[in-house]
Amino acid sequence: MKRKRKNYLPMAEMVVALLIACLVGAALGSNSSDDGVGKQAKGLFGPLPQTMASAKNPITPEKVSLGKMLLYETRISVDGTVSCAKCHPVSLYGADGLRKAIGNQGKVNPRNAPTIFNAAAQISAHWIGNRLDVEDQARQSVLGPASFGMPSYQAVEQRLKELGYGPFFKQAFPEEREPVTVENFARAVGAFERTLVTPAPFDAFLKGNRESLNETAKMGLKTFMDVGCAGCHNSPYLGGQQYQKFGITAPYWQYTKSPEKDDGRLAVTKKEADRYVFKVPVLRNVAKTAPYFHDGSVDSLGEAIWIMGKVQLGRDLTKKQVKEIDAFLNTLTGEIPQDALTVPLLP
Amino acid sequence: MKRKRKNYLPMAEMVVALLIACLVGAALGSNSSDDGVGKQAKGLFGPLPQTMASAKNPITPEKVSLGKMLLYETRISVDGTVSCAKCHPVSLYGADGLRKAIGNQGKVNPRNAPTIFNAAAQISAHWIGNRLDVEDQARQSVLGPASFGMPSYQAVEQRLKELGYGPFFKQAFPEEREPVTVENFARAVGAFERTLVTPAPFDAFLKGNRESLNETAKMGLKTFMDVGCAGCHNSPYLGGQQYQKFGITAPYWQYTKSPEKDDGRLAVTKKEADRYVFKVPVLRNVAKTAPYFHDGSVDSLGEAIWIMGKVQLGRDLTKKQVKEIDAFLNTLTGEIPQDALTVPLLP
Repeated sequence: MKRKRKNYLPMAEMVVALLIACLVGAALGSNSSDDGVGKQAKGLFGPLPQTMASAKNPITPEKVSLGKMLLYETRISVDGTVSCAKCHPVSLYGADGLRKAIGNQGKVNPRNAPTIFNAAAQISAHWIGNRLDVEDQARQSVLGPASFGMPSYQAVEQRLKELGYGPFFKQAFPEEREPVTVENFARAVGAFERTLVTPAPFDAFLKGNRESLNETAKMGLKTFMDVGCAGCHNSPYLGGQQYQKFGITAPYWQYTKSPEKDDGRLAVTKKEADRYVFKVPVLRNVAKTAPYFHDGSVDSLGEAIWIMGKVQLGRDLTKKQVKEIDAFLNTLTGEIPQDALTVPLLP
Repeated sequence: MKRKRKNYLPMAEMVVALLIACLVGAALGSNSSDDGVGKQAKGLFGPLPQTMASAKNPITPEKVSLGKMLLYETRISVDGTVSCAKCHPVSLYGADGLRKAIGNQGKVNPRNAPTIFNAAAQISAHWIGNRLDVEDQARQSVLGPASFGMPSYQAVEQRLKELGYGPFFKQAFPEEREPVTVENFARAVGAFERTLVTPAPFDAFLKGNRESLNETAKMGLKTFMDVGCAGCHNSPYLGGQQYQKFGITAPYWQYTKSPEKDDGRLAVTKKEADRYVFKVPVLRNVAKTAPYFHDGSVDSLGEAIWIMGKVQLGRDLTKKQVKEIDAFLNTLTGEIPQDALTVPLLP
């Protein structure tokens, strides 16, 4: 598969990026005042939008309402046990607490299920960029052998019709004569996901309320920017905007104790440069979405922070630094939108 | 296992009960006015309580709140995929849409998962009375090999502590020094379930609003009482108050096309008289909780109604009668309590 846009950096450029991140960090590090930290943070992260709108799939109330229903629908999976919400339950901030997601008939997915909150504005969905966006992720999931496991799009559409979804699709896609399609299933689920933004204490801080972060968290934010974490974990989502090699300065599995090495994005691009390359994950709600990394190999956030310092930045973060970054990352735990906290009743 | 209370009827008594139900039905059948039907219904079903309170497990807000969290908690199952809500999702009115419930590692449970709504006031939980009440059901589920599959109560308690449930148990059970126990897990889940009552159009009808049922549904209610359905499906829950043989006038599997015969309550009492005996299920929300019967062998409510006439009452209900009873049973689809429609966020 050819890709025109280059969202990842080859090795040499990565090292340069890393150096720049460190130098920028060091230069800014001298300003330790709240305002200095706040200004630096504003530049690196920017304001969180109210939704993750897309021109390709505009958000409408009818699509969102249908999308939420479909998120909970298990009866369109091959054994009737898998819904989007199975691996992305709202109660666990849109992740499932497992190392690797488990789909129909107990089948294990290749990687950890990322949260659906604040997910729709990334360069792609999932870890290795084999899903273009949240709509594509929904579309592909219904046939995924370890997710819904359905034999064909037709089979999914047939079931949706039998279950009585016809009128709901008609409302969401009024222009279409035959609206019950997997394409529209994907649009509806995607539209719902595009509303799943979770404003957090950190956003109040960025808006100028400097009391939203306590001193420990502020120190953590400063370190997060100074040592280079924000070189990759930036944007309002603190991630999701680029691919990076996991393990720049040391092989990741030496620290994560992963039972297997994962080739990462190499599986998509077939390029050697993409071995061990993954999408930089979004860090919003990270304190609520353990275990960590593409294989869920690490249970504790503190350990994950320390490992990232070690294998991405070549730094041995001190216990104090880890504790402070941990406190900062906890200020990214946001408020779930009311609509997402309500269970839909299915037809 | 000896049981002093006799909640089921041996064969001869069942036939007598059936005859009485038919005669009572026939006698009352002559009065076809709304008031006559309403009066008869009031006597047979009675008003739906606001909660299904129990002196043994009083309902408190703290217990209910904890119970709702625990209902969604997957991380206390052996593979991290099973919660109470997995087989009893609110989105599907507390049942799972499967023939037989599926637990950890894809294991199939012996029977269909009954809804958790309006369930706590029955003589026992589940189909064959091997769970004393909803609390006992929660307690037994954590060790159930095809449900949570945990190795021991200690293992469950250990996980609850690790997940940070300590303060929530303390709030719910303030008198106890070590409140994080499976016993209290069961009490909390049970207390939440005891709030799950769903008032329906039929209740408005019983209260005197005769317009709550359309003419078809009223005819269905009349037939339901006249032909003998209400002989077993009575009380405010339309069931759950007695055990009965499934297939009094003909073997059930000849009509349900069940792939296996289920001994039913014989497995609990070891008495031959209990072969094919099951608890009479609650009919509230029955239109929303297909498929039907202990093995989920029948998909359509109309077919289930016709089969019940055939094998329990020895009647060949006409298409019109089936349609009318179906319309009546649809008036038992109730309003889910607001609290149950909100997803809890887990620690």
